[in-house]
Amino acid sequence: MNSRDRVEKLRQLMKENQMDAYIIPSFDAHQSEYVAEHWKGRQWLSGFTGSAGTVVITLEDAGLWTDGRYYIQAEKQLEGSGIKLFRMMDPGVPFYSEWLANVLNEGNIVGFDGNVFSTTMVKRMEADLKAKKITLKIDQDLIGELWEDRPEIPKEPLFTHDVNYAGKSRVEKLNEVRQEMKNKGANYYILTSLDDIAWLLNIRGKDVPNSPVVIANVIVAEHTCYLFIDSCKVPASVKVELEAEGIELKANDEIQPFLESLSGDDAVMLDSTRTNIRLYNAINSEAKKIVSPNITTDLKAIKNDVEIKNLKACEIKDGLAMVKFIKWLKDSVAKEEITEIAAEEKLENFRSEQEGFVGPSFDTIAGYKEHAAMMHYKANKETQHTLKAEGLFLIDSGGQYYDGTTDITRTLVLGKLTDEQKRDYTLVLKGFIALSAVKFLHGATGSNLDVLARQPIWQYGIDYKCGTGHGVGFFLNVHEGPQSIRNDSNNVTLEKGMIITNEPGIYLEGKHGIRIENMMLVAEVEKTEFGQFMNFEAITYCPIDLAGIDKGMLTDGEKQWLNNYHQEVYTKLAPHLNEEERVWLREETKEI
Amino acid sequence: MNSRDRVEKLRQLMKENQMDAYIIPSFDAHQSEYVAEHWKGRQWLSGFTGSAGTVVITLEDAGLWTDGRYYIQAEKQLEGSGIKLFRMMDPGVPFYSEWLANVLNEGNIVGFDGNVFSTTMVKRMEADLKAKKITLKIDQDLIGELWEDRPEIPKEPLFTHDVNYAGKSRVEKLNEVRQEMKNKGANYYILTSLDDIAWLLNIRGKDVPNSPVVIANVIVAEHTCYLFIDSCKVPASVKVELEAEGIELKANDEIQPFLESLSGDDAVMLDSTRTNIRLYNAINSEAKKIVSPNITTDLKAIKNDVEIKNLKACEIKDGLAMVKFIKWLKDSVAKEEITEIAAEEKLENFRSEQEGFVGPSFDTIAGYKEHAAMMHYKANKETQHTLKAEGLFLIDSGGQYYDGTTDITRTLVLGKLTDEQKRDYTLVLKGFIALSAVKFLHGATGSNLDVLARQPIWQYGIDYKCGTGHGVGFFLNVHEGPQSIRNDSNNVTLEKGMIITNEPGIYLEGKHGIRIENMMLVAEVEKTEFGQFMNFEAITYCPIDLAGIDKGMLTDGEKQWLNNYHQEVYTKLAPHLNEEERVWLREETKEI
Repeated sequence: MNSRDRVEKLRQLMKENQMDAYIIPSFDAHQSEYVAEHWKGRQWLSGFTGSAGTVVITLEDAGLWTDGRYYIQAEKQLEGSGIKLFRMMDPGVPFYSEWLANVLNEGNIVGFDGNVFSTTMVKRMEADLKAKKITLKIDQDLIGELWEDRPEIPKEPLFTHDVNYAGKSRVEKLNEVRQEMKNKGANYYILTSLDDIAWLLNIRGKDVPNSPVVIANVIVAEHTCYLFIDSCKVPASVKVELEAEGIELKANDEIQPFLESLSGDDAVMLDSTRTNIRLYNAINSEAKKIVSPNITTDLKAIKNDVEIKNLKACEIKDGLAMVKFIKWLKDSVAKEEITEIAAEEKLENFRSEQEGFVGPSFDTIAGYKEHAAMMHYKANKETQHTLKAEGLFLIDSGGQYYDGTTDITRTLVLGKLTDEQKRDYTLVLKGFIALSAVKFLHGATGSNLDVLARQPIWQYGIDYKCGTGHGVGFFLNVHEGPQSIRNDSNNVTLEKGMIITNEPGIYLEGKHGIRIENMMLVAEVEKTEFGQFMNFEAITYCPIDLAGIDKGMLTDGEKQWLNNYHQEVYTKLAPHLNEEERVWLREETKEI
Repeated sequence: MNSRDRVEKLRQLMKENQMDAYIIPSFDAHQSEYVAEHWKGRQWLSGFTGSAGTVVITLEDAGLWTDGRYYIQAEKQLEGSGIKLFRMMDPGVPFYSEWLANVLNEGNIVGFDGNVFSTTMVKRMEADLKAKKITLKIDQDLIGELWEDRPEIPKEPLFTHDVNYAGKSRVEKLNEVRQEMKNKGANYYILTSLDDIAWLLNIRGKDVPNSPVVIANVIVAEHTCYLFIDSCKVPASVKVELEAEGIELKANDEIQPFLESLSGDDAVMLDSTRTNIRLYNAINSEAKKIVSPNITTDLKAIKNDVEIKNLKACEIKDGLAMVKFIKWLKDSVAKEEITEIAAEEKLENFRSEQEGFVGPSFDTIAGYKEHAAMMHYKANKETQHTLKAEGLFLIDSGGQYYDGTTDITRTLVLGKLTDEQKRDYTLVLKGFIALSAVKFLHGATGSNLDVLARQPIWQYGIDYKCGTGHGVGFFLNVHEGPQSIRNDSNNVTLEKGMIITNEPGIYLEGKHGIRIENMMLVAEVEKTEFGQFMNFEAITYCPIDLAGIDKGMLTDGEKQWLNNYHQEVYTKLAPHLNEEERVWLREETKEI
């Protein structure tokens, strides 16, 4: 059964259930970016495999809304499905509920599974659809009814994350959360986002690919913290440990009655962008709701000293894996047949040799030549390239380790480049260096700094249709807020101890894709009469391929930054390499 | 009577009127930045002459809230007044209503003249004071009662601004406004900001120093536009012209009954940040209020082709005045005694020789040596410096011409500089060039671009405590929104046809002040597959003093920008200069 057939079956079911449209997002019941197979209904229906995108089916029409990272990929994967691509970031493209307000008739009904929609999103849809008296039916999972071999919800056991890694005990973290609840006047706090739960309780799991989270929900009360979870996931020893620290385990399905049992004396704090509409609706209507960003979001974004020390050690291991991989690839590319997937697997092998490696932190993007122009490309056996001793190979990958999460991109020069490739590589490097080298006054946000990375690229009439940087969790989600570096108007100040990536790029459809990415630590550098100045410390340790650079395009200051960085890379990695590798790394990090 | 005495008298009056605090802002009844003498009550009371600042007097305490431009100046001018300086932009400094909520007691009363407070500001104060049950008394102008020789409200006649200058007739402009009223469902639109009124009706006046506006209020209805104005200000011929175009004149004091007479069928649009609370409260409570930024704000920010053509011609005239002034100053400084005020007057003389010059667009800032560290310094006879053939002289000035408003700063090298002065001059120039030379994707805001100007300065641990750029009116206010270039999170997109200044600086208290400022036109430069790219066209034509530059600190690209700019300046100005001036200008604009 192909996408076209599945969409037709869905339309049949919609008609039986008096629905005029049905929406399938990419989320699970916790608004996770990475979801277990069980929740990949949108992929199952449409064939589009990107991590973000929403499919909307009406009786006559069908569309996928996705962002700039996926335009090229989505266009290919939707071919023949009858589903149109809506390029969400392009000017004039309506949001899907605006589009529905336009194509549907007065009084129509839009259905979806309320478990996988945030409260905020549902309120927005209601606002968009109100004028046309279109109503929502949120209690039916039609995809679940159609999808015969749908995978089960994972039941993997959880494990604890030692305080030697995490730097702060769950009791300390719960105290911080309760302090903030008190400040806001709340006696209950609903926490449903999986990375926040894992961070708060120092637990990890294997329920979701790439992210070591555990499927659960949490309600923090004044004295007890309730963990709603499938009991089979909690080993007996962990249960004892949690209970000793005031964490009471309850079955998954107890959360709804719990919320219904609250009274008018209760004040419940929740983040409406992360709490699904069915949980939100379960809260007793007498209780006061305090809608506010998750307390844990800010707390976990600022890494503590133990996390930072661990992460830097972790980045050395990750850098060693990268260096061994790059050396192997450059040595072998002309001699043996290496496909994109083979390269990807080789890199994962090198990572798995490192202590404490658990798995990749996201699906590796290994794109040769024009494949790399797809920002979030995923190689497959049918269409992948075999690498040759020419052109550019982009590899964006990361690891989950007990002592940190990594994310690194290098674009490798496999042989002769065109002038345009060299120019673009150097432009990306210039943007990357400008952001790496910035010194900024405390108070600046990522949207204040984004232009530094884009400016050299914009000079040539080129742009990349994605953010420049994102936060990174600690042995958690590779994409973590609230900070980011984007050309928007977000107002999150970059604080000491935050981690942020720096990853400008150039993506020319059908030609090539270039991205260079480091992780950076926000640090204090000096306090003067004008205020506290901050900078970024690069904590990814891996050479940037010198062979791609048009040196004439770099200023002395840019060369200086690169030489200093490469010196640091050599110093950090060399002690852990053998003689042959050291010699190779010395050459790769030589002064220019 | 000095400030201390006046504050005591005010406290007496506060007691008699059962007020525990009294607030005096710097605004008139139209929220104007520049106000007629009649409304300078805050200056009269406190002695602080800056354009922005609010004084708050309690029975025991007194404070002035002002921004970073005025910290140094305010500290000096408040000496001995008993009024404390609150540095509004510093972290942790409370807003004045927050401060009042803290220092006053439950049930206290805060008074002010509601005519000079915007609706938005009053709502904010109410919110801050609510928890402590502090109430507002908004109908008494105590300053008016105390100020014996208070100047009258100006009664200057208005004049029309020809469509050959303005580029668009008042009928066209009213049509645009009515279209937007229709879109928003309003049948009345209250316009009280003086520059918007002047723009909309193509009228100008002499009521306010520096800004050619007319004191009036406007209500646009579906078919008639009502102009509430002192009838003595409108010459008979203008009255005929206005009435022929559907503009009905009414007396000033008819606006309150007009607003009271509206009904529940009416919908009134207004900008609550510009409409004072007493007018707002006068609107019949049955009528629907549509609060929205002034329609005219966006319309007048984007200059039409005629305005742009006129403005460029105007900038040549202004540049000629500047060039003649700089040449005169450099020739004369070692030979004759020139004070800051004398220099200021000489520059105004050169401007007044230019066709269509009406007056300065703001109070000239002419600061020698450490005086220039005060961002908005105003020289006075007692403390002014006499210029010598050494150090730096900052002059920030502008003109009002029938064909445009100008704003330019140059920091002039009068002789030998220290290494620190040269370094700082070059840092400011680097920031100035970085912003001048940017090419950016349409959609970027001033807060996205601000860092370009600050970055070289931040590298040395220095910051300037003000924005980098502001919009400029067309023969109107020298500061005009909605666009700006600041390190905040404003979300106004820079659109083709907007004017914005570029004026980074370094201000070291007790040492020196450096600023370089051009006006720039936002322009479209190229459209590619990635979108519409924009740039800035410098439309201020005046050399930047080469003698301040440490050439070793400039990149080749920066030198190239400066050489191109200087070539443009020479080309524009030379045809209008005599031989001696041309030779001088050739040297001042030579390649480096």
